[in-house]
Amino acid sequence: MSRPVKPATAEQLAERIRQALGLHPADLVIKNARFLDIIGGQLSTGDIAIHGEHVVGVCESYAGRREIDGRGLVAVPGFIDAHVHIESSLVTPAEFDRNVLLRGTTTAICDPHEISNVLGVPGLQFFLDSALGLAMDLRVQLPSCVPATDLETSGARLDAEQLLSFRNHPAVLGLAEMMNVPGVLRSEPGVLEKLAAFQGRHIDGHAPLLCGRELNAYAAVGISNDHESTSRDEARDKLRRGLQVFLREGSAAKTVAALAPLISDAVSPFLAFCTDDRSPLDIAEQGHIDHCIRAALTAGAPMTAVYRAASWSAARGFGLTDRGLIAPGYVADIILLEDVETCRVHTVIRLGEVVDDELFARRQPVPAIGRNSVKLDPVAPQQFALRACGPTGPVIGLRPDQLVTDHLTLSLPYRNGQRLANPDQDVLKVCVLARHGTNRNIGRGFVKGFGLRNGALASSVGHDSHNIIVVGDSDRDMALAVNRLIALQGGLVAVRDGEIVAELPLPLAGLMSDLSFSEVCDRLSVLRRAAWAMECRLREPFLSLSFLPLPVIPHLKITDRGLVDVDRFELITT
Amino acid sequence: MSRPVKPATAEQLAERIRQALGLHPADLVIKNARFLDIIGGQLSTGDIAIHGEHVVGVCESYAGRREIDGRGLVAVPGFIDAHVHIESSLVTPAEFDRNVLLRGTTTAICDPHEISNVLGVPGLQFFLDSALGLAMDLRVQLPSCVPATDLETSGARLDAEQLLSFRNHPAVLGLAEMMNVPGVLRSEPGVLEKLAAFQGRHIDGHAPLLCGRELNAYAAVGISNDHESTSRDEARDKLRRGLQVFLREGSAAKTVAALAPLISDAVSPFLAFCTDDRSPLDIAEQGHIDHCIRAALTAGAPMTAVYRAASWSAARGFGLTDRGLIAPGYVADIILLEDVETCRVHTVIRLGEVVDDELFARRQPVPAIGRNSVKLDPVAPQQFALRACGPTGPVIGLRPDQLVTDHLTLSLPYRNGQRLANPDQDVLKVCVLARHGTNRNIGRGFVKGFGLRNGALASSVGHDSHNIIVVGDSDRDMALAVNRLIALQGGLVAVRDGEIVAELPLPLAGLMSDLSFSEVCDRLSVLRRAAWAMECRLREPFLSLSFLPLPVIPHLKITDRGLVDVDRFELITT
Repeated sequence: MSRPVKPATAEQLAERIRQALGLHPADLVIKNARFLDIIGGQLSTGDIAIHGEHVVGVCESYAGRREIDGRGLVAVPGFIDAHVHIESSLVTPAEFDRNVLLRGTTTAICDPHEISNVLGVPGLQFFLDSALGLAMDLRVQLPSCVPATDLETSGARLDAEQLLSFRNHPAVLGLAEMMNVPGVLRSEPGVLEKLAAFQGRHIDGHAPLLCGRELNAYAAVGISNDHESTSRDEARDKLRRGLQVFLREGSAAKTVAALAPLISDAVSPFLAFCTDDRSPLDIAEQGHIDHCIRAALTAGAPMTAVYRAASWSAARGFGLTDRGLIAPGYVADIILLEDVETCRVHTVIRLGEVVDDELFARRQPVPAIGRNSVKLDPVAPQQFALRACGPTGPVIGLRPDQLVTDHLTLSLPYRNGQRLANPDQDVLKVCVLARHGTNRNIGRGFVKGFGLRNGALASSVGHDSHNIIVVGDSDRDMALAVNRLIALQGGLVAVRDGEIVAELPLPLAGLMSDLSFSEVCDRLSVLRRAAWAMECRLREPFLSLSFLPLPVIPHLKITDRGLVDVDRFELITT
Repeated sequence: MSRPVKPATAEQLAERIRQALGLHPADLVIKNARFLDIIGGQLSTGDIAIHGEHVVGVCESYAGRREIDGRGLVAVPGFIDAHVHIESSLVTPAEFDRNVLLRGTTTAICDPHEISNVLGVPGLQFFLDSALGLAMDLRVQLPSCVPATDLETSGARLDAEQLLSFRNHPAVLGLAEMMNVPGVLRSEPGVLEKLAAFQGRHIDGHAPLLCGRELNAYAAVGISNDHESTSRDEARDKLRRGLQVFLREGSAAKTVAALAPLISDAVSPFLAFCTDDRSPLDIAEQGHIDHCIRAALTAGAPMTAVYRAASWSAARGFGLTDRGLIAPGYVADIILLEDVETCRVHTVIRLGEVVDDELFARRQPVPAIGRNSVKLDPVAPQQFALRACGPTGPVIGLRPDQLVTDHLTLSLPYRNGQRLANPDQDVLKVCVLARHGTNRNIGRGFVKGFGLRNGALASSVGHDSHNIIVVGDSDRDMALAVNRLIALQGGLVAVRDGEIVAELPLPLAGLMSDLSFSEVCDRLSVLRRAAWAMECRLREPFLSLSFLPLPVIPHLKITDRGLVDVDRFELITT
């Protein structure tokens, strides 16, 4: 399970040769399976022989010391998640590993910028340490935008010098998504310093709707991909500038169906799939990269090109030349599918080992980190009072299943110099409380679209600075929810009419649970039902809540410093 | 012209951004040209803006400090020769550079195993030093098989330890073609040591007709490509094992037409073009990689897939992620074609500079090497006497335009205990004289198929050990040719009836001329005509001569140690 795979010695090569020639039985042989040749586009026949961590034989007959009967199954190369924030799955890297690997994701390229915004270098170090002990191959890109903006209070900053100290860590490929597009275009020194430090290495992109000369400038600094395209025209334009395009199935942002018509034999080498931010419920109920593949196939994309994008093309984009094919000399990351059309996973083989509980039990555990990250005294309801000079003011307008919000102006009940929430207008109060101990900021505002009545929802997950965000129709319930969240030292809390009705503790940096994946899913289901019981209309109320503080997504957002007009990139008065 | 391209500084990135945005005029702009988008398969419009060595803008309008009018032209990414022995062009790397770069070959991956067989490390060092001073990007793979076999006397040996000392040279990508297939399959320690030393780096292949489990074993040790496929079935089989397949247009071995039906959008990323051993006359008369492209297009291969194979696919195969597309952030290696269907080159841009005499004049010259490499005293005709116990014995049977020979058994004139040449049977004597100063071996035999009468041809180019090879119908003319060749300290010599009628001195290791490319072509034409005037029927007499000593090509060959039965891999008595 050490990564990267160690170079073979002469003696190991000799044994590879002997097993490939059939002079020695192979360590593991997949018998009688067909395999999808993603080069020739055929289903090829013949056994697959594996020695140690590598495939040594295909297309021939082999005997093995261990054999798997692959009759009726189709082998495909392991799937790659080209861009993921594991923290969004609300579990530790180890629990993420245990769940997505069994769905065929043998490699993931993660950006730990959530935990880095809370804990800084120790958070990044936790992911680097975790990566080396997992069953899957987790690569850790170094977060380029911590904090995302200066319009919020994060728990930490990462500058170029700090990032450089991790440049040669074996799990690091390069720099994570450069979200600060204006910073690039304005040649801000801190941004250029980071880009210069990673020239010749890999640099990931994030450039929603960027086009024209600005897109040229963004690509010209060595950024090599983008996962934000929402239309085929946008994706085609980015491809023409040489950017690899990732099709994304996050929980909030889904583009596979829209972009699937792009997938062809010719374009497939320049595509890949990613999940970005995907909730554990979506992983449990729909799948991970296997779900992306199903979504693409359902949309009519050609099969070989889809599987190639999910494996070889993604590997190529990151310079991982040892994987993405089922071929001699390649690492044995292989998925046996019951059915290639619907991508039903039967068995996963990672580095030549069948993935099972025993494999997971052999992993190197890494001590949990980030307990006691909610540095905030208990609050009183009156701290949420929103003083204003009249009834009319800005309101965040939620759009269902989108991160983009509307900038509304509404008249609300107004008493004693305070503007008030009004469930009858579907307008709740929303507050963001700085929780990193550097100040006691509270940002106050209103949001329309939750549908919630007689309660409050609070979360210590609030992108990307992860302050506390709370929404509700009464200051009393909001305070109760926040205080419970402080007591838990992070988590998700639902309060109904003065009573805590559901909660999920997230004690690790206020972002991740120390529970198992399935327990987290169970608790999340209860939380979701609790919100729905309060008439909330959102499919994923806590997910929608967590993106309200992200001031790099238009149009109106809220941070601990107050409401942010994202289009003008400035704070506004309420 | 320094290679590899240096990582950009923050200030250089800032200027890239300013030029990409159009805030500053670009250093160079190609105006009004279309460019072949090898991802989308379209001819795209818009200017191409270049800052320094990199493209910074496409698909938009730009103004430049220098502008090229590209009206009516089509821009394509620079071509890559994926495998070449420059010595076979009979000129220095600098003259090779001057000629093939103007034909669009902006990158070449060379294997200097010819000069290494003569001079060892200093020969390799000469290519490494040369590489850093050229206008083109020349990458030097470290020769894996010096000498090629133990059935001949080479001038030097290169072991794993010596190769390792060059592993991190900036021009080195990895290990050159592993021709010792039996050595791999038998796990010979010296071979495995070299393969182990380059795990995780690039290793080139060379495996004619290898198939089945043996091909699996060969690929399993990390070899990533092959340029020896002669049939589509062979190539498909190698692709299925994950090997990248190079289509070759050498002077003696041509496979582009035969393999062209393989070229498709799906397979193109796993293909590339190479020239391997290409004579200067063929380069001058037909072209280089541009000729490969024409040959593929003529054979009906789809255009985008062909140009992709010649650029991006080859770059990808060698991990050269900075080239192969005309896109922002990529190096500006761009060819302007008059006509994309016939690949007629109009202008070549290398690292953002128009390739012209002025660019070549600015190159760093490297002192010539390998003078006085023919360590041999003058010979007397009687040294070629072939004593035998009767008239009947083995004769090498030449096949026109092939390297493979037949193993014939013929009765020849027999007098005074000597077997004699007989032009009436089209049988000449052929001798190989060790010339590296370690011994005075002379191998003697006969060859059928030259058609030559009343003369002799001698060459200090004789693959791969490059001893002196001479063929003729009289010992007297043969001795005259060899003695002239010793006086020249290497070269090609034609003798007719006691008189030297043509010659090309190759004073650099006996392999390369110090003359210009065009002078070499002129002399070669004269030599060819001289051989034809002696009734020689071969298209390229000296090329055929030079491959007679290569004991890794079936079936009967000759080295300084004598005749070699290649099928049994042993010396035979005459």
